[in-house]
Amino acid sequence: MESKGKFKGNIVIGQSGGPTAVINATVAGVYTAAKEEGVEKVYGMVHGVEGFLKKDLIGLEEYLDTGLGIELLKRTPSAFLGSCRFKLPAAEAKPEIYEKIFSVMEEFNITAFFYIGGNDSMDTVKQLTDYAAANGKKQVFIGLPKTVDNDLPVTDHCPGFGSAAKYIATSFKEIIRDAQSNSPSKPTIILVETMGRHTGWLTAAAALAAGEDCEGADAIYLPEKVFDIEAFINHVEEVAKRKHTVVIAVSEGAKVADGRFVCELGGGSGNVDAFGHTQLSGCAHTLSDMIVERFGYKTRVIELSTLQRAASHIASLTDIEESYLAGCFGMKAAARGETGLMVILERVQNNPYLCRMNYYDVHQIANVEKTVPLEWIKEDGISMTDEFLEYARPLIMGELLPLFVHGLPSHLVRKK
Amino acid sequence: MESKGKFKGNIVIGQSGGPTAVINATVAGVYTAAKEEGVEKVYGMVHGVEGFLKKDLIGLEEYLDTGLGIELLKRTPSAFLGSCRFKLPAAEAKPEIYEKIFSVMEEFNITAFFYIGGNDSMDTVKQLTDYAAANGKKQVFIGLPKTVDNDLPVTDHCPGFGSAAKYIATSFKEIIRDAQSNSPSKPTIILVETMGRHTGWLTAAAALAAGEDCEGADAIYLPEKVFDIEAFINHVEEVAKRKHTVVIAVSEGAKVADGRFVCELGGGSGNVDAFGHTQLSGCAHTLSDMIVERFGYKTRVIELSTLQRAASHIASLTDIEESYLAGCFGMKAAARGETGLMVILERVQNNPYLCRMNYYDVHQIANVEKTVPLEWIKEDGISMTDEFLEYARPLIMGELLPLFVHGLPSHLVRKK
Repeated sequence: MESKGKFKGNIVIGQSGGPTAVINATVAGVYTAAKEEGVEKVYGMVHGVEGFLKKDLIGLEEYLDTGLGIELLKRTPSAFLGSCRFKLPAAEAKPEIYEKIFSVMEEFNITAFFYIGGNDSMDTVKQLTDYAAANGKKQVFIGLPKTVDNDLPVTDHCPGFGSAAKYIATSFKEIIRDAQSNSPSKPTIILVETMGRHTGWLTAAAALAAGEDCEGADAIYLPEKVFDIEAFINHVEEVAKRKHTVVIAVSEGAKVADGRFVCELGGGSGNVDAFGHTQLSGCAHTLSDMIVERFGYKTRVIELSTLQRAASHIASLTDIEESYLAGCFGMKAAARGETGLMVILERVQNNPYLCRMNYYDVHQIANVEKTVPLEWIKEDGISMTDEFLEYARPLIMGELLPLFVHGLPSHLVRKK
Repeated sequence: MESKGKFKGNIVIGQSGGPTAVINATVAGVYTAAKEEGVEKVYGMVHGVEGFLKKDLIGLEEYLDTGLGIELLKRTPSAFLGSCRFKLPAAEAKPEIYEKIFSVMEEFNITAFFYIGGNDSMDTVKQLTDYAAANGKKQVFIGLPKTVDNDLPVTDHCPGFGSAAKYIATSFKEIIRDAQSNSPSKPTIILVETMGRHTGWLTAAAALAAGEDCEGADAIYLPEKVFDIEAFINHVEEVAKRKHTVVIAVSEGAKVADGRFVCELGGGSGNVDAFGHTQLSGCAHTLSDMIVERFGYKTRVIELSTLQRAASHIASLTDIEESYLAGCFGMKAAARGETGLMVILERVQNNPYLCRMNYYDVHQIANVEKTVPLEWIKEDGISMTDEFLEYARPLIMGELLPLFVHGLPSHLVRKK
């Protein structure tokens, strides 16, 4: 293959952490820009750094040298390359891991390393950048943002969030339609649980459902606010007097005043993942039990679970495009020799929405969590302000129709 | 409004039972054909017979006299008119209810009564037909099939099933993509629970997910087969040796040999709905607990819940069209003076799929449940044959894009 540009060496892309519906669009973006820059080989790490350490690499040319491959990848949810939850230890503690990573890079003539992920993944980019600087290595390291949780700092928002928000808001509209079809003789309380361990961005997205054809959720509980059990019970009782179908959005990460998760009150699973985070589930179930016990109302628990981060069939076109552009932009930065950066999205304006790419020192980003601004939660503590809606609405705009084969969305998958 | 045809009197349409993503397309079909036939006023019962008894009627002309109204209604999930779960008592037991129904029909000059629903709703059509015959009433009664459960007899399939199947199969593909993104060091078992109290049509739809880009579910448990706990545990163990992400489809109605629901082994909710059916939930949770206890594997439970019957954003075009045609066909039958019928779908052929409308004596349909033929379940008891796939595949074909407003599917809703 002839080089169009003059990029020296090959590149590698990895995906890390929980996947999203649009994380692969970033791979497509890096790939497309890489070929523009004359990169000869674009490698993918199979299962992130974990795979890289085992030299488990694939050449992306085999999949992406056609327009159809790129279009299919943009519509494929979850990490095409495979993800991992590998926490890179400090270089002082485990120098051999760093030596191994750099030796694999040298072996494959890899001069630029792209890592798509959230907080924990940006820590990997930071540490590799620091190690390279301390050891006179010339390779560059670029972080590309990805998280449905939307909790990365500095960037206006994260690729992945818009599509999750679109899925959540669409599902709320459908759940509310469904709930309102019946005219129950006694109140039915529907508790919809969204992801978001420490931040309420995804839960807040339920607010987007309200409009001229939908009254929206009756309450939205973010982890940014202390969850007051009595206030919750009272609110449910009060709404149930006015209407017999009550729909509530609640974060898996809702916490009571003493710091315990709501799900721990009813017995959460208590599992811990590789990053040391408690695996939460059951907040809505816990609240449901409380309502049944207190009022005997009928309840229904709906956990949006992994679908909220995997439902590419209703992904936001804006999100896919930004995810793609972030990849292109990161590759362009690498081609200029930049390193230790994360691509960020900077909103220029709303109405019409305009957003540009930029980049930022990854040291300022890794391990910092951005929560929903408290001033975007209304005084009642359970609904979102217009500022939030103006922030979130542009991110869910537009659709990219799946490529349907045999009636189902088609995905690009790695060969065995 | 001038009559195009010569239909005498007005008509009324009701919706009953659990809603679907396409139940409103049938309303649109009846309405369109009614106007062709010269029906002056098309009434909708608000919340089915329950509302009808209270004369809670709306004129559909207000909503549907534009092409946009019809198109929006076709894309609106759940019962636009409102549904109910009213079980019509026998005429001998409660003659006053029948007298009331016929007096409301006479007051509004309603000569044809359309009821869209499943088994229990067809019982209403049957009883009203019989009462009319026994009492010399001239009104006609037409049943229109609707159920995600696909459990009505005689008809090849039911409007509503195809869209639910498309949602389920799409969700399985996305759940499997998501699950396979990680390379967990110990097995992760994902249990996806589908609706279907006594029949496994919806659970079986998970089989559609398998294809060249997806290996599909690792086991599918229908209520048609006795659920053998030991065999399940052994299968999970066996699959988990080969691969670390195991995805299982299980019906909420799975039962063990002594007739108890699986969820009852772990303590189901035990609630009973208006038709006397036990409200089930927790089958997948019960199985998850068993797996954790036995193996300590990580598990994830995903209940597709009401979204599988409400997700019109990924409805099947075939399903919407058939649902619409069933409404048209029913109206045409009523115009010819037919009564006591349910519209049925008759498959003429597959490849290319061809299906025609017909009708059938509602007495042969009410209260009869059609289960998945046992010969469509493979000998292993946990996967579906090609015959099932050939049956189900045409029903999920095609898409009807939602009308997106502010980034979300738009719905038609009744005015307050």
